[in-house]
Amino acid sequence: MTDTTSGDAARATDSAERAGVDMETLISLCKRRGFIFQSSEIYGGLQGAWDYGPLGVEMKRNVKDAWWRANVRERDDMVGLDAAILMHPQVWRASGHLDTFTDPMVDCRNCQARFRADELPSAGDGVCPNCGAKGQFTEPRMFNLMLRTFVGPVQDDAATVYLRPETAAGIFVNFENVLTTTRRKLPFGVAQIGKSFRNEITPKNFIFRTREFEQMEIEYFCRPEESARVHDAWMRDRMAWYARFGMQSGRLRLRAHEREELSHYSSATSDVEYLFPIGWAELEGIANRGSFDLTQHSTYSGKDLNYYDDDRKEHVVPHVIEPSLGVDRCMLAFLADSYDEEVDEKGEKRVVLHLHPALAPIKVAVLPLSRNEKLTPTARDVYARVRLHWMTQYDDAQSIGRRYRRQDEIGTPLCVTVDFQTVEEDRAVTIRERDSMAQVRVPIDGLVDALRERLVDVG
Amino acid sequence: MTDTTSGDAARATDSAERAGVDMETLISLCKRRGFIFQSSEIYGGLQGAWDYGPLGVEMKRNVKDAWWRANVRERDDMVGLDAAILMHPQVWRASGHLDTFTDPMVDCRNCQARFRADELPSAGDGVCPNCGAKGQFTEPRMFNLMLRTFVGPVQDDAATVYLRPETAAGIFVNFENVLTTTRRKLPFGVAQIGKSFRNEITPKNFIFRTREFEQMEIEYFCRPEESARVHDAWMRDRMAWYARFGMQSGRLRLRAHEREELSHYSSATSDVEYLFPIGWAELEGIANRGSFDLTQHSTYSGKDLNYYDDDRKEHVVPHVIEPSLGVDRCMLAFLADSYDEEVDEKGEKRVVLHLHPALAPIKVAVLPLSRNEKLTPTARDVYARVRLHWMTQYDDAQSIGRRYRRQDEIGTPLCVTVDFQTVEEDRAVTIRERDSMAQVRVPIDGLVDALRERLVDVG
Repeated sequence: MTDTTSGDAARATDSAERAGVDMETLISLCKRRGFIFQSSEIYGGLQGAWDYGPLGVEMKRNVKDAWWRANVRERDDMVGLDAAILMHPQVWRASGHLDTFTDPMVDCRNCQARFRADELPSAGDGVCPNCGAKGQFTEPRMFNLMLRTFVGPVQDDAATVYLRPETAAGIFVNFENVLTTTRRKLPFGVAQIGKSFRNEITPKNFIFRTREFEQMEIEYFCRPEESARVHDAWMRDRMAWYARFGMQSGRLRLRAHEREELSHYSSATSDVEYLFPIGWAELEGIANRGSFDLTQHSTYSGKDLNYYDDDRKEHVVPHVIEPSLGVDRCMLAFLADSYDEEVDEKGEKRVVLHLHPALAPIKVAVLPLSRNEKLTPTARDVYARVRLHWMTQYDDAQSIGRRYRRQDEIGTPLCVTVDFQTVEEDRAVTIRERDSMAQVRVPIDGLVDALRERLVDVG
Repeated sequence: MTDTTSGDAARATDSAERAGVDMETLISLCKRRGFIFQSSEIYGGLQGAWDYGPLGVEMKRNVKDAWWRANVRERDDMVGLDAAILMHPQVWRASGHLDTFTDPMVDCRNCQARFRADELPSAGDGVCPNCGAKGQFTEPRMFNLMLRTFVGPVQDDAATVYLRPETAAGIFVNFENVLTTTRRKLPFGVAQIGKSFRNEITPKNFIFRTREFEQMEIEYFCRPEESARVHDAWMRDRMAWYARFGMQSGRLRLRAHEREELSHYSSATSDVEYLFPIGWAELEGIANRGSFDLTQHSTYSGKDLNYYDDDRKEHVVPHVIEPSLGVDRCMLAFLADSYDEEVDEKGEKRVVLHLHPALAPIKVAVLPLSRNEKLTPTARDVYARVRLHWMTQYDDAQSIGRRYRRQDEIGTPLCVTVDFQTVEEDRAVTIRERDSMAQVRVPIDGLVDALRERLVDVG
């Protein structure tokens, strides 16, 4: 988990550097093409929540699958978990969230707008970003970021539970269950993907900071003396993951926390920062949390959460390395990173998402040259074959050039064109590549294999 | 959505028929092998919530993928969506949930225990299931099942939002967004998977009825005059899906709702019922909801949610068919359905989950005949090759017979055994099939292909 949510946006706002695409262009593309909609839009929207449309849901599934594949399936030292969002309230007393998961909040006495004190340029005598009044802020008050609800038929304190502000706690409270059922030896890790909720005072920057979000978190348990080495290995590993799925290295950096930024229990934390449209900001946190979490949950639950080392005949409380990432923020990074505007020889603009094939929402588009009835049956047949293997779109509206552009704009790596030569002569089709725009002719019978060759590291 | 949650469990309890395995056996297997744990167990648990362990999370992913594949990827008339759990509160006024999503609740005046009135044998003068007192129940009061929370820094009525009690609403409020961005023509459908929450008074029967659960819902929009035919088609289609993934037909049935069970807006609803360990009970609801939802959201939002038929030059409010299923309940059905106890020639019991390969959490287990150091490098190499393609386990602890049993019990369809012949003679391994226990020898170089041939309809 990232215990405090402050800092990243502030740094981002100060930064002069920006990614290639601005936020408005990205938001507009996402809405227009069905990646991301404002939540409950027809009712005026709900701040801090977003809905993923037909393309967005596919890309989000792909991001999560790419993470799960690399961090669970392909490793022999990791297992998965999927804990409930609702947890026993005592969990948050042990984790410290009930007492310390807070943001400082100030009100403008003039216009009653509310702000995070740490996000105002200078809170004491600053200018209100809403009404422009000067020096009208109240003293900062601490505000807990957990969302509360009530379970059971009686609404009183006993029934108060919280929507988890992070998924990590589900891993710690299940430490013993995982150990017993998988018979794992140190070092090993547990990976989890799921929704979390934080009552952000000022959700902002599209899907960068939201009240409802999804996390991908790893808790990797190791012997205390190994933790620094394991921490290093995870930093390399996570950076390699971004590279594997095509993120530009120049827009990605590791930043070690300064001593004063560290939580009291953490010996080292590094952020993976990405050059977002709002500037450099946290994409992932990779923390060495020591034995803090297992110790706290042992104390509060009365269960000994430790590991018996059979070789050394000793009990040890493992230390934990935590690489923790938001799915939504990761989506934003991959979208911004892949966005490009090119101008062709005719001076026409081509918008392209250079998404890695594994992340692209649609892998293949099948395009008959025209709606001519001679072409339709064959094009439909090709579509039916391809769809069994990958997310595929069929498009026969408007000119072939416009249809290529439409697919480029949503990042479809391959287009398959069915033309008159296909049905009259060679039973072959044209594969057109998104990035190079190169075209190659392949027989329909070999099409699935030819596509598979080009869809590298998918699934 | 299923508007009322009553009925199914009551019918189930009355039923004399039961599935082959009893609930306690299943719960015990799930806990022992890491499928499903009690939520927040070390803190005494949280009623109505469950955590999916290392095997459970894989199986749950598989169930969701199998549904998504069949209902989105393989169809040309469906797209996906992933709306937020938090929605504008007005959504639930329009849908009717704020007013009518209630259960009748009674208290026992003697012991203060609380019950759902419709689940007591005869509420008025019945016997308290908790203390045995007779005729001590209060009059039934209506209790809203939605979980409330507060967003934003001020906790008052304006900031009250609900955790969605169903995912369907997210589809209706995005109807226009989906239509605009995908340029779909009727008929077409939208599929969604996500968490929902209901404040059940008495969550029970393991993962059958919980407060936090996951849904897989489809809203399929069509012209009004086509809705009866489309409803029939979806019933056939959904039954075929269960068959495709191995569910036993004798434990599955379609039951049309009686007139008095129907919601006022529904012209027809059928339940897919499964023979659970608690008896016949609802697994999926397939409702013809008419134009109720789009009309309601049009009225409350002030936006015209309709479809312009370009051929007929007319506006039409589509009717909707809704196949709606709980992921957790679906997991329970597949687990119960696949559970089997066999007795071998030596009189030893073999517990097997006959899961379809697509649903099995682990597809392949790699088992060296022993821990002999001659075998380990080759076995590890085989493991590394297979793991790139499927969820794979490596197990070298205890006898090969016990290891086969362990894999049978978690439903692993294929075991690959590395023996001395492998390393000393033929560079071949043995594939052992879970159900038939048949063994076949294949060269390591052809292993991935041989496994792929046997892992039918996976991924």
